[in-house]
Amino acid sequence: MNLKHYTIAGLFLLGSSVPAMSVAADVEAGKAKAQVCAACHGTNGIAQIPGYPNLAGQNEQYLVSSLKAYKNKQRNGGQSAVMQGQAANLSDEDIANLAAYYASLPAGG
Amino acid sequence: MNLKHYTIAGLFLLGSSVPAMSVAADVEAGKAKAQVCAACHGTNGIAQIPGYPNLAGQNEQYLVSSLKAYKNKQRNGGQSAVMQGQAANLSDEDIANLAAYYASLPAGG
Repeated sequence: MNLKHYTIAGLFLLGSSVPAMSVAADVEAGKAKAQVCAACHGTNGIAQIPGYPNLAGQNEQYLVSSLKAYKNKQRNGGQSAVMQGQAANLSDEDIANLAAYYASLPAGG
Repeated sequence: MNLKHYTIAGLFLLGSSVPAMSVAADVEAGKAKAQVCAACHGTNGIAQIPGYPNLAGQNEQYLVSSLKAYKNKQRNGGQSAVMQGQAANLSDEDIANLAAYYASLPAGG
């Protein structure tokens, strides 16, 4: 067992001893946070504006990386400035929850 | 009628006098061009890799702006380097055709 295995074992131990500290994304919290998103991305994750993406049923991991890229101003071009502003104040937890929420919606609305 | 109106009128005239110069995107050409995309984005536009986006039924205009942003290296972060490479040699026509193709596929696969 090398250092990496010890670390993984430690994380499991931490997880089991602190049940209140959820590492799973919270779809309901994401839904609440998504209210401001609905103006452009629709209440069902189907965009209201042709230049904006549908988010319903999108891959959760991709949504996380996209939101982080907007937050870090790594995504430019198109309408990215809008999303840079929207993502600026999102925490990693907010991002995880929003991604889980939109991924949970049925693709196509 | 100002200069802008003359320009618009001129474009309509050009369009009607040169029928062979299609401005509409070609879904079939997009489908042919998309063969290389299928390894990651699926033959039906549903991603084979969690970190990559589903493209089926995505908004056409958004797909165009996204591909152009990758081509112009305006999109970074995540797995963007892969798409920067893929988009580097796409013409505006290729991009329009690919966007039309993926937008035409049913969301959710």
